[in-house]
Amino acid sequence: MVAIKDMLQEGAVLRPDGRAADELRPVVITRHWTEAPEGSVLIECGKTRVMCTASFTPTLPRWRKDSGLGWVTAEYAMLPRATSDRTARESVRGKVGGRTQEISRLIGRCLRGVVDMKALGENQIQLDCDVLQADGGTRTASVTGAYVAMVDALRWAQDHHHIRSADKVTKDCVSAVSVGIIDGKPMLDLPYLEDSRAMTDMNVSMTGSGDFIEIQGTAEHRPFNRQELGILLDLATKGNKELQAAQRKALASD
Amino acid sequence: MVAIKDMLQEGAVLRPDGRAADELRPVVITRHWTEAPEGSVLIECGKTRVMCTASFTPTLPRWRKDSGLGWVTAEYAMLPRATSDRTARESVRGKVGGRTQEISRLIGRCLRGVVDMKALGENQIQLDCDVLQADGGTRTASVTGAYVAMVDALRWAQDHHHIRSADKVTKDCVSAVSVGIIDGKPMLDLPYLEDSRAMTDMNVSMTGSGDFIEIQGTAEHRPFNRQELGILLDLATKGNKELQAAQRKALASD
Amino acid sequence: MVAIKDMLQEGAVLRPDGRAADELRPVVITRHWTEAPEGSVLIECGKTRVMCTASFTPTLPRWRKDSGLGWVTAEYAMLPRATSDRTARESVRGKVGGRTQEISRLIGRCLRGVVDMKALGENQIQLDCDVLQADGGTRTASVTGAYVAMVDALRWAQDHHHIRSADKVTKDCVSAVSVGIIDGKPMLDLPYLEDSRAMTDMNVSMTGSGDFIEIQGTAEHRPFNRQELGILLDLATKGNKELQAAQRKALASD
Amino acid sequence: MVAIKDMLQEGAVLRPDGRAADELRPVVITRHWTEAPEGSVLIECGKTRVMCTASFTPTLPRWRKDSGLGWVTAEYAMLPRATSDRTARESVRGKVGGRTQEISRLIGRCLRGVVDMKALGENQIQLDCDVLQADGGTRTASVTGAYVAMVDALRWAQDHHHIRSADKVTKDCVSAVSVGIIDGKPMLDLPYLEDSRAMTDMNVSMTGSGDFIEIQGTAEHRPFNRQELGILLDLATKGNKELQAAQRKALASD
Amino acid sequence: MVAIKDMLQEGAVLRPDGRAADELRPVVITRHWTEAPEGSVLIECGKTRVMCTASFTPTLPRWRKDSGLGWVTAEYAMLPRATSDRTARESVRGKVGGRTQEISRLIGRCLRGVVDMKALGENQIQLDCDVLQADGGTRTASVTGAYVAMVDALRWAQDHHHIRSADKVTKDCVSAVSVGIIDGKPMLDLPYLEDSRAMTDMNVSMTGSGDFIEIQGTAEHRPFNRQELGILLDLATKGNKELQAAQRKALASD
Amino acid sequence: MVAIKDMLQEGAVLRPDGRAADELRPVVITRHWTEAPEGSVLIECGKTRVMCTASFTPTLPRWRKDSGLGWVTAEYAMLPRATSDRTARESVRGKVGGRTQEISRLIGRCLRGVVDMKALGENQIQLDCDVLQADGGTRTASVTGAYVAMVDALRWAQDHHHIRSADKVTKDCVSAVSVGIIDGKPMLDLPYLEDSRAMTDMNVSMTGSGDFIEIQGTAEHRPFNRQELGILLDLATKGNKELQAAQRKALASD
Repeated sequence: MVAIKDMLQEGAVLRPDGRAADELRPVVITRHWTEAPEGSVLIECGKTRVMCTASFTPTLPRWRKDSGLGWVTAEYAMLPRATSDRTARESVRGKVGGRTQEISRLIGRCLRGVVDMKALGENQIQLDCDVLQADGGTRTASVTGAYVAMVDALRWAQDHHHIRSADKVTKDCVSAVSVGIIDGKPMLDLPYLEDSRAMTDMNVSMTGSGDFIEIQGTAEHRPFNRQELGILLDLATKGNKELQAAQRKALASD
Repeated sequence: MVAIKDMLQEGAVLRPDGRAADELRPVVITRHWTEAPEGSVLIECGKTRVMCTASFTPTLPRWRKDSGLGWVTAEYAMLPRATSDRTARESVRGKVGGRTQEISRLIGRCLRGVVDMKALGENQIQLDCDVLQADGGTRTASVTGAYVAMVDALRWAQDHHHIRSADKVTKDCVSAVSVGIIDGKPMLDLPYLEDSRAMTDMNVSMTGSGDFIEIQGTAEHRPFNRQELGILLDLATKGNKELQAAQRKALASD
Repeated sequence: MVAIKDMLQEGAVLRPDGRAADELRPVVITRHWTEAPEGSVLIECGKTRVMCTASFTPTLPRWRKDSGLGWVTAEYAMLPRATSDRTARESVRGKVGGRTQEISRLIGRCLRGVVDMKALGENQIQLDCDVLQADGGTRTASVTGAYVAMVDALRWAQDHHHIRSADKVTKDCVSAVSVGIIDGKPMLDLPYLEDSRAMTDMNVSMTGSGDFIEIQGTAEHRPFNRQELGILLDLATKGNKELQAAQRKALASD
Repeated sequence: MVAIKDMLQEGAVLRPDGRAADELRPVVITRHWTEAPEGSVLIECGKTRVMCTASFTPTLPRWRKDSGLGWVTAEYAMLPRATSDRTARESVRGKVGGRTQEISRLIGRCLRGVVDMKALGENQIQLDCDVLQADGGTRTASVTGAYVAMVDALRWAQDHHHIRSADKVTKDCVSAVSVGIIDGKPMLDLPYLEDSRAMTDMNVSMTGSGDFIEIQGTAEHRPFNRQELGILLDLATKGNKELQAAQRKALASD
Repeated sequence: MVAIKDMLQEGAVLRPDGRAADELRPVVITRHWTEAPEGSVLIECGKTRVMCTASFTPTLPRWRKDSGLGWVTAEYAMLPRATSDRTARESVRGKVGGRTQEISRLIGRCLRGVVDMKALGENQIQLDCDVLQADGGTRTASVTGAYVAMVDALRWAQDHHHIRSADKVTKDCVSAVSVGIIDGKPMLDLPYLEDSRAMTDMNVSMTGSGDFIEIQGTAEHRPFNRQELGILLDLATKGNKELQAAQRKALASD
Repeated sequence: MVAIKDMLQEGAVLRPDGRAADELRPVVITRHWTEAPEGSVLIECGKTRVMCTASFTPTLPRWRKDSGLGWVTAEYAMLPRATSDRTARESVRGKVGGRTQEISRLIGRCLRGVVDMKALGENQIQLDCDVLQADGGTRTASVTGAYVAMVDALRWAQDHHHIRSADKVTKDCVSAVSVGIIDGKPMLDLPYLEDSRAMTDMNVSMTGSGDFIEIQGTAEHRPFNRQELGILLDLATKGNKELQAAQRKALASD
């Protein structure tokens, strides 16, 4: 961790919100936020606010039937005024945009990465992540919040005898966080202002045991080297550990 | 008002939530619920929860340009798990359903009914009503909440010198409430349980001065007569007066 | 009825087509207008001309199956040159507009309001209302014409032993008419010219016994009060009675 | 013409409607059928009934602007119960089917084939052919009827000084008719019953001077040889001459 | 054939690529061009290059099931840079254009015209014709190439015991070629440069026995008479015979 | 590189095609594969075959106008029978799938990562990557091939005086390769058979200078740790170097 510290303190980095380079924004996870879904979570990471619901259904999509295995899928969307300018609704435009589909698929893969499909049995969990307010990191907040909503839905399913044990379905927990390089400095958990200025931008999804489920790094503005990658992954590891602590705390209180 | 009282007390109506037949559900109006929109309101009518945002833009749709007049439009949508069973997203299905369009148009007409388009000038207000939790009366809650969001957006526009006076743009306030006949008894403000059993179902939108902007009554299950209509309108008048008091109170506190 | 008379005669209202304020346009209902459909009606209300067909099928949409009940549904559309300017086809634009869906749903509700679904049995009636020429009141003419087409389809179904008795399926007849306030004067049955100038515009659908199936009043331009509502409903009642007489006459002749 | 006679009389062909093999169905062309369009024609060929409207607009599609030339385009559609079973609306299905597009394009080409685009000037004619009742030959009836509607629209345009001379815009008249081989016998003007049994099916569009604008012959069920082609073209020539006489007669009466 | 010769030699026609008026462009048919499909052919007609694949599946579309008959269908498409200007993808535009659908349907009819659906049994062949480079005649090259791909798929099906005999399924071979009149001269096999200048343009699909499956002639720019039609059909007959020789040669080599 | 060697030789890995774990499939890059596009490349990586075209246009999308900067965008698609089972066309389904959009966006980002938008000036390059045959690694082959096509388009643009210098537009070269862990063994360049069995799957896009443009690693089946990540990145670095040598070689020959 020395390397990060060094790099970050060199220029006495001042982030717009006063955070240290390796500091997360405040995280608040509210369970049972609405009543209808089997799992319903509001996750707030700084000003980013995402409503994550988990719908448990004892049926499967056709292609998965009679496999003895379950399925987990996810859909992500933004409300029109989650952003500072109004974004036209995808329903009105008549199609789901590329960014939305890319993120929906990412969330689905991350959650499936920690689910034992055999233990889930022939049941489906549909995760819906709707961004109420967007200030950067909406996809990573979605992964982190969706995990908590999924656990709640699994507990509900256990209580209603759809599955034997919620604990056995989740092989591990999963969270995600963004990291990036801004003006040459690696940073953890970028708000919109930083994200739009990042040379390199990376979303890292990790399990509780510290392994990677998904790494997506992109450098449209300036390529990054192996050393920078190392520092970014260190930052992401630190951030994900803290997010997983917040998940555990939220799931303990009931 | 004697007629209603009589009718309602005849059989000592017991509503599932213990309310009297002419009693509204508790209403909570939270302004500035999110930060990005010019107007952002969370309205809660019992368990029904709608996020209403108002976007003010100093541009007009093409067909309205150079008219010297402004425009107000609205879009309504439900999040997938606002309902007890998951509803497929209209963006994913690739089209906006008939019910959604019908409600969006209703909200737009109600709000336009109290706006002085000349005073608004060549500016546009887009209202977005997204249902986070649905327990009946989502379209009427949308109208009531959207009015408050619109006033906030107009105040913002006045502060930013886009319009001269927010007060002059709104000719009056507007709210809406549902009424219906259940097992022969007229009732005010129907939650989902009652709504689905109603013989007749009516949404009434009124101005602060007590006039009608919109009446939509439908009797798929049993036609209603002129006398019943009268009682339903009395109930709606009472409900709208109380909703307008809640609007005024919310708009006073700042 | 005194009130209407008074109001109307005050200023010696001159309607563009010379009608009195409480006078319908000439109505012509032609049955068996085309040969393929089980019911096929051309209804003409002044210059408004709508082709209404009723398709009887002994199958149901999936969600209604095994309910022991029938179903009635409706679709409304305008031909491109029903209007004075050409309207682009909704098929070409790739989606059905909000107005079209709103009207289709209205027609469906009105017809379902007089059908005994049990007597219909597990059969479906699809009503198609295609406007050949539009001069105001197309949705109300559609309801009035669709009822006649539906009766013909039911008689066909009785003759072909799909249902026991056409008479038992229809609990009552149904018609619809528009009313509105123009320059402060309530008027019956508005052609396009009047409709576009109306302060308040209301469509009223009534049964033969004089009860309401659907009331849709909208006041985008000037709210209306309880007294005006009363006069409008009186006018609508008069109009619907005359339309129902025309329906009866058409159905008697065979 | 000997060849046809021989072939047809060999087996004393009995057509279901009693016609001779080289006989057209009765043709009725009604002009000014509706009031709004610049040209409005109802064409009836036997039981086939098509409403053809021509919309004249003094504007062009963007790609044609500033060319000094006009444009003619066509759209064809079927009402849901033009057919014996109800056909789902293309607007509701969200896309225009292949058959519809193929026919729309055919009609457009046929009409453009007789129009002098320079004489038309920078104006557009949009032809809409909506089938009210379908009994075979709807596309050929559309071509024949659309020509009459187009002439009316051009006369309107001349009267309103959009073009100098309607006569100079149409280089010739155009009509179309179907021919086919049924049980080895060539036939003119096939109704649905014959069309569905045809081994070979051909639509032939001709000018008044007897030249071809469009030939579309298809032999999904049995290929046809050069001699059969000759007979079919003779039949089509006879039919088109008679249709053009009907067009002339309709256009003469005013 | 004298007539053609005469006509063509009158003015010593010089085609841009030096060909005689009745001369095909060089044809190259490459079988087994890719490995996955049951039949995969690259056909090159001059610079026009089309990849034709045939997919054999032992299932049928729902409407064809339990008929004892097979089905053959085709889809045509252009890659974005098959043309000299980039054409937007139809997938991105969200709908298949009219030209594409028209051609897909044409190819399907041509191939079905030589298939014995009973001998094919309850199996389906899907032909995909993707234009890699377009220089006129893409639809006719598609028909010619698709036939070869279909034969390969049938041989595969025979080897895998899905059908008894590939030979019995094809009643005859089929090919197609374009002809047209340019500056008054009939020509065989038009490249793009000629096609865009043609007064009349015709696509002719013929069986090996010299009969017609499909004739599509269109004369948007100048009608054609019966004599010209005769010459065009002579040219097409000559071209198709040569194309069928190329098909036979390709299918012989293995 | 010791670590990889050790790991790979431990169990004497036998890949289905006999390659060593750190060995690329044979790469063939064919330039000027078709004539119309400014850049046209066929890239073959083993059996995977992608046609990459680059379209240079001296216009920009509206949002980018008057910025002084160019733009680079990409679209990826699969032909229906690139795969062993036929895939339905996205044009026919009416929408572009999530996987397609995700890959199109990835390719665009990779290419933009090496382009100097200022040097490109107000011009656009559209890359189209159409998969003719798919055997794993289609997205990475697309990146590698698209780079070569883009260079050809830039050289064309220089020759046609749309840009000053093709060399100045490309800041570096870019290629991409897939790596993955199969049965616990890291492998380079996975064909379909391996890809479908991979526990972890990663696509790595690198510049000629050895920096990363894009890393996308996903572990739906088993998370991966930091050490495994290191080995995968070593393999990807080796593969990309070899691919870049192939690019250079192809671009040198002219």
